[in-house]
Amino acid sequence: MPRKNAFYAQSGGVTAVINASACGVIETARANRGKIGKVFAGRNGIIGALREDLIDTSKESAAAIRGLMTTPAGAFGSCRHKLRSLEENRAEYERLIEVFRAHDIGYFFYNGGGDSADTCLKVSQLSESMGYPIQAIHIPKTIDNDLPLTDNCPGFGSVAKYVAISTREAAMDVASMCETSTKVFILEVMGRHAGWIAAAAGLAAEQEGDAPHIILFPEVAFQREKFLKQVQRTVKRHGYCVIVASEGAQYKDGSFLSDAGVTDAFGHSQLGGLAPVLADMVKSELGYKYHWAVADYLQRSARHIASQTDLEQAYAVGQAAVEFALRGDNAVMPCIVRGKGKRYRWSIGEAPLEQVANREKKMPRGFISRNGFGITEAAREYLAPLIAGEAYPESRNGLPRYTRLKLAAVPRKLKTSFKV
Amino acid sequence: MPRKNAFYAQSGGVTAVINASACGVIETARANRGKIGKVFAGRNGIIGALREDLIDTSKESAAAIRGLMTTPAGAFGSCRHKLRSLEENRAEYERLIEVFRAHDIGYFFYNGGGDSADTCLKVSQLSESMGYPIQAIHIPKTIDNDLPLTDNCPGFGSVAKYVAISTREAAMDVASMCETSTKVFILEVMGRHAGWIAAAAGLAAEQEGDAPHIILFPEVAFQREKFLKQVQRTVKRHGYCVIVASEGAQYKDGSFLSDAGVTDAFGHSQLGGLAPVLADMVKSELGYKYHWAVADYLQRSARHIASQTDLEQAYAVGQAAVEFALRGDNAVMPCIVRGKGKRYRWSIGEAPLEQVANREKKMPRGFISRNGFGITEAAREYLAPLIAGEAYPESRNGLPRYTRLKLAAVPRKLKTSFKV
Repeated sequence: MPRKNAFYAQSGGVTAVINASACGVIETARANRGKIGKVFAGRNGIIGALREDLIDTSKESAAAIRGLMTTPAGAFGSCRHKLRSLEENRAEYERLIEVFRAHDIGYFFYNGGGDSADTCLKVSQLSESMGYPIQAIHIPKTIDNDLPLTDNCPGFGSVAKYVAISTREAAMDVASMCETSTKVFILEVMGRHAGWIAAAAGLAAEQEGDAPHIILFPEVAFQREKFLKQVQRTVKRHGYCVIVASEGAQYKDGSFLSDAGVTDAFGHSQLGGLAPVLADMVKSELGYKYHWAVADYLQRSARHIASQTDLEQAYAVGQAAVEFALRGDNAVMPCIVRGKGKRYRWSIGEAPLEQVANREKKMPRGFISRNGFGITEAAREYLAPLIAGEAYPESRNGLPRYTRLKLAAVPRKLKTSFKV
Repeated sequence: MPRKNAFYAQSGGVTAVINASACGVIETARANRGKIGKVFAGRNGIIGALREDLIDTSKESAAAIRGLMTTPAGAFGSCRHKLRSLEENRAEYERLIEVFRAHDIGYFFYNGGGDSADTCLKVSQLSESMGYPIQAIHIPKTIDNDLPLTDNCPGFGSVAKYVAISTREAAMDVASMCETSTKVFILEVMGRHAGWIAAAAGLAAEQEGDAPHIILFPEVAFQREKFLKQVQRTVKRHGYCVIVASEGAQYKDGSFLSDAGVTDAFGHSQLGGLAPVLADMVKSELGYKYHWAVADYLQRSARHIASQTDLEQAYAVGQAAVEFALRGDNAVMPCIVRGKGKRYRWSIGEAPLEQVANREKKMPRGFISRNGFGITEAAREYLAPLIAGEAYPESRNGLPRYTRLKLAAVPRKLKTSFKV
């Protein structure tokens, strides 16, 4: 069997540990030099392939590749670009084949979420549909934790850990000042369609009365009166109230709270996030002094406090992707399988991409407490092991030392360019 | 000399390391049992004294007190309550003396910022003005870093570290996605009157082109056109632009940008912070896709990533306060003195409270770059050592293990109550 090269690309929103998956792919490929050629990474994801803008990872030192383990965000660049169907945009697929052929690429490793799984599935079918032999393996990654078949998604554990720690810390601040100052604190976290991230904040609580007191999930229709009553009850009982809200919190009709008509002086709408909308509700109806925070990108890039479990899993799925490819698999995704028994154990399984693409895993209703504002014991059991362990990066001058790659371009072989 | 008890209180906004100062006070007092009695802490700060709501720290184990080193926020509660002048509110001073006398308190340790220094100074004068013998020592604490005479303020180094790390991490996220997604990211940080915290974000940059590309200081009048041009120039040059903005960013006339007319559907104003105002400006004038974050309390409670230097200094000023008291000092504040020479060294000095109270230290103009959007080498030299060293807390189940004190109340001795 002639040695084929591999293409690797990062796709969609990045995470604190997606580069650990890249590290898993590249190190495993290097360990199998006899069977697999070079790993070329797409600069800025799949559009790097379309533009024939490839990065030669073989130019990076072993230390630099290892450094990916402690480096957040997408070291090769990522993008939001979903390949449409073959019928809709045949030109893109033809271009991919042209680039793959020019660079002798026989393996396609795509590191992303649900949309990327779909793209990866389409690429896996190129062999059949367009006669170009390629094995496509999807490497799961999403802070949203919404991929099916895998017990959890690499990237989620670290954002969960960040949110749980931040909630605990900020709540201590509020608790110590609430007698004369802020009584209500709102932390807005990511999660447009599913409340996994907000749910993780629930891990901050250890005892009755601990924050967060209210979690707002996209899965539970927001009821203004019920919410305000719960805030008031909490402040009366504990002196303060900490709320963690998914950005996707919505009314029964599906409209987002964050779209609730916040406008600036010029009438531009959708300026703010959800947190200020909730804060205003609390202030105008209950009169409590409030503060709010929006973690935004801070939460998904917080490598300084990444979960050790998450990091290991991110590496493992990258490693498994190469191993699956080398044994001849196509259109699959390494997934994380939770062992049975009380003590948390996990292993790597294999899921057919057809069953992954375009399916979203919502939080089970049994993870949300009866009043809709908290998590259940079942949720805690599921979530807790995912944030376990610290994986502190090396520091220099008080700051994490993150790797900078050379990102050397692979010389172009094609005369044609392609507009993305 | 009969052994007098001590009163300790936390005042104003809390920090990641104010409890380290409490630890310094309590451990040093315990080490000097022959000379000083118990340390009583005010529950929720000075109002605990006024209400005769004291916490008996002698009921806490040595391990619990040591645990304060790794516990953020105010373990005894803090408050925003400034004692007015003796003429304006004599009743409060009389009440303080009444409580101090009842509990045989001869030492007053007040852990706070500028306003607290003023309160502490007034208490130090009780001996003279009202005939009650007391030694009052102020223990510096403020994330704002705006106290005079001390080289820096405990609490600042940790928020500076948090902001520098968060900026570096979020910027990597933006950089890896900017080709097809967010081009402008805005992080709003604290600092109503001085830009120290925003300046610290500048430490995230190591090389030309690194984020943050624009820092907005309260000290530099905001010019809309100049700002927008700089954003555009940065995006054209680097593909993205990271902005770190002090909440106190203001126009030439002193009006805050955050007051710039953000209203909700009901016309309530001042809903949002500064970040969404800037984001809207960028979107409407330049059309770039943006994201923004508001760190709020997360930044000042982030004990998980506290600065080791800051932690040591916070402890040292608590320790020194007791030592100063035991040698008979009054109306003073331990301060941090920076050694000369290239290598950073610090020691504890002593500053007269009269020169501390009601004076605010702004950033030197020489710390802000000529275009007003960055920091100078002088600023870097000043700031860098303050964030040095990691002081990770112990973790359990993936979360920092923060101390919970018993907070046992000292039995009341007075019949009268006092309305605060």
